[in-house]
Amino acid sequence: MTATRIEELVTPALLVDADAFEHNLSTMATALPGPRLRPHVKAHKCTALARRQLAAGHHTFTCATIKEVEGMAAAGLGEDLLLANEVLDASRLGRLDARVTVAVDSLQTIEAAAKGGVKEVLIDVNVGMPRCGCAPENAGTLADMARKQGLVVRGVMGYEGHAVGLDDRTLRQELTAKAMELLLQAHKDVGGDVISAGGTGTYDLNTWANEIQAGSYALMDAAYAKLGLPFKQAASVLATVISTSAAGYAVANCGLKALAMDHGNPDIAGGGNVLIVADEHISFIPETSVAVGDQIRVLPAHVDPTIAYHDRMHLVRDGEVLETWEIDLRGW
Amino acid sequence: MTATRIEELVTPALLVDADAFEHNLSTMATALPGPRLRPHVKAHKCTALARRQLAAGHHTFTCATIKEVEGMAAAGLGEDLLLANEVLDASRLGRLDARVTVAVDSLQTIEAAAKGGVKEVLIDVNVGMPRCGCAPENAGTLADMARKQGLVVRGVMGYEGHAVGLDDRTLRQELTAKAMELLLQAHKDVGGDVISAGGTGTYDLNTWANEIQAGSYALMDAAYAKLGLPFKQAASVLATVISTSAAGYAVANCGLKALAMDHGNPDIAGGGNVLIVADEHISFIPETSVAVGDQIRVLPAHVDPTIAYHDRMHLVRDGEVLETWEIDLRGW
Repeated sequence: MTATRIEELVTPALLVDADAFEHNLSTMATALPGPRLRPHVKAHKCTALARRQLAAGHHTFTCATIKEVEGMAAAGLGEDLLLANEVLDASRLGRLDARVTVAVDSLQTIEAAAKGGVKEVLIDVNVGMPRCGCAPENAGTLADMARKQGLVVRGVMGYEGHAVGLDDRTLRQELTAKAMELLLQAHKDVGGDVISAGGTGTYDLNTWANEIQAGSYALMDAAYAKLGLPFKQAASVLATVISTSAAGYAVANCGLKALAMDHGNPDIAGGGNVLIVADEHISFIPETSVAVGDQIRVLPAHVDPTIAYHDRMHLVRDGEVLETWEIDLRGW
Repeated sequence: MTATRIEELVTPALLVDADAFEHNLSTMATALPGPRLRPHVKAHKCTALARRQLAAGHHTFTCATIKEVEGMAAAGLGEDLLLANEVLDASRLGRLDARVTVAVDSLQTIEAAAKGGVKEVLIDVNVGMPRCGCAPENAGTLADMARKQGLVVRGVMGYEGHAVGLDDRTLRQELTAKAMELLLQAHKDVGGDVISAGGTGTYDLNTWANEIQAGSYALMDAAYAKLGLPFKQAASVLATVISTSAAGYAVANCGLKALAMDHGNPDIAGGGNVLIVADEHISFIPETSVAVGDQIRVLPAHVDPTIAYHDRMHLVRDGEVLETWEIDLRGW
C-alpha cells in the first residue's frame, strides 16, 4: 500500500508535524521526566497521542471532563487519572476500572465524589484566577470533610491560569510564585503527597508543584508560540485555496468550524494577513502569491478548542501521512 | 416511559426551546414561503431540524460543505441542494442521488464541477465582502465557460455577508441594495432562474434576490438578537454550576469547547457578567445568586460554530426533553 500524501486529504484537515511533535515530547520528558509531568489530555483529546506521552515516560494523566477519564480508562491508560475539575455526579467515574482522583472544592463536590464511588480526591485551591478552587484558608477544613466521608485526600491542586499565558517571563514567574505560596500554605493544612499545578507556560518556572499539568506543549499554538518556550508549533489546519481575487486576497476552505477564535485570528504558515474568518472560509492576503487549488497551512491561535472541532488528526512528515489518530475524547 | 427532564441531562448540553423554535419557523415561513427561503443548514447541521423546515414548506436547501450535501441527500432531503461554496473536487457530489447545484467562481471550480459529475451550477458573484465570488463583470464569461463544459447554469448567487450582521437597519438596507445591484447586473449577463442571496439579517430587506439563504433564524444567537428581528433566541447551552466563590462569582461547566467565541462572550440567561470562558469553564457574576448544583442556560454569541461542537441538541418545553436530534452534518 502506498502512503497517503497530504495532497490527497479532504480539507480542512488537522495535521501534526511529526518532527515538531517528537521534539516537543522529548524536550518535555527531559525537563519533567515520568510523573513530574501529568500530561493534560484536554489539549489533544486523543488516546493515540496520550500513548505517545506514555512511551515518553509519563504514566499519570490529567483530564478536564468525565468523558476524557472514561476514554483514557477504556484505552488502558488508567494507571493514575486526575480529573482536575469539579463534578456534581461522579457515578460514571466510580464505575471505571482505573485509578481515578477527582478535584473537590466544596462540600457538595466532596459528597458527589463519595456518593459516586470515587475513592481519592485532591483539594482544588484557588490560587488567584476567578475559577474553581476553594479559598486557601478553607482547604484544611475541606480535607477533613473529605476524610470524614471516607475519601483518601492525596493532596492539593491549584492552577495558576492567570500566569501561564503571560508573554513577560518575569511577570509569569512572579505570579506563579505568589500562586504557589497560596497552594503550599493550603497543602500544609491538607497533607498528602500530591502538589499538582502548572501548565505549558510555567512548566519550568513552577518549581513548587511536584507535578505539572501541561498539555499544550505537545502540539502548541500561536498563543503559546509567543512565549519563547522550547516547544515547536506542531499542529496546523491544512486547507485548500478555493478562490482568489484581483484585489490581492485569497480564500481557503477552513473557518470557524475548524479553528477556535477565543485567542483571535490564526496565523498563515509562510506569512499572510488574515482578513476574515467565516464559518467555512478564511480570507487572507498571502505574503507570497497562491493559486486556486493550492494547499496552505493555518496555525490555530488556541489549540485545545480547535482540536475539539476535528474528528481526527494526521501525523505527517515530508508531506506524507504516517498515522491518523481519532480524536476520541471529545464531548461530555 | 417517563419523559427525560433537563435536570437529568449530562451537562453541558445544547437545548432548543420548542416554543421559540416553532415561532421562528412559522414566522419565516409566513414571510418567505416555500422556495422563497432556501434554508441554510450550516447554521444547525442537523437533518432532523431540516425536516422541520421541510414541514414548514421549504423544499430547497443551502449547504456550506460537501458533507452537509451528502448528509442531506442520504436523509432524503435532496430535492434541490445548493452547495453555496467552491470546491476543487466535486466527485463526492456527482455520485449523490439528489439534485445538486454547486457555486463556481473560476475556471478551476467550473472544471472541478464538470469533472466531478455535477450537472448544475450557480455563478458566485462577489457583492462586496472579501470572500469567494467572481467580480460582477466576469460573471457572464464564467457562465459561458460553464455552459461550454456542459453544465447547466441556473443563475447567480452573491452573499451580502458584510451587511447581514449590522445593527443599524438603515445601513444594512443600503449595503444590501448596493450588493444586490451588483448581483442583478451580473445576473443580466448570466441568465437563469435563480438569484440567490441573503441571510437572517437581511431576510426581509433583500427584495432583489428570489431566494434567501437564511439559516440562523431557526435557532438564533446573541449576535443576531441585537438586530431587532422577529425571531427568538431558541438555542442555549445548559450548564451546571460547579463552584461558587465568596468573592461573588460562580463557575459553570461549559466553556470554549461548548461555545464559539468569534462573536465574543456568550450571555447568561437571567443576567450575569461573564468574566472568563476557559476550556471547560465559564466564570460569571450572576445577577441573582446561584448555588453549586444549579443549572443555568448560556446563550451563545454565534450559533453556527457553537453547534459544530455538539453531538446532539435537545428540543425542550417546560423543562422536559421532547426530542433529541443528532447533529449529523458536522465535519467535512
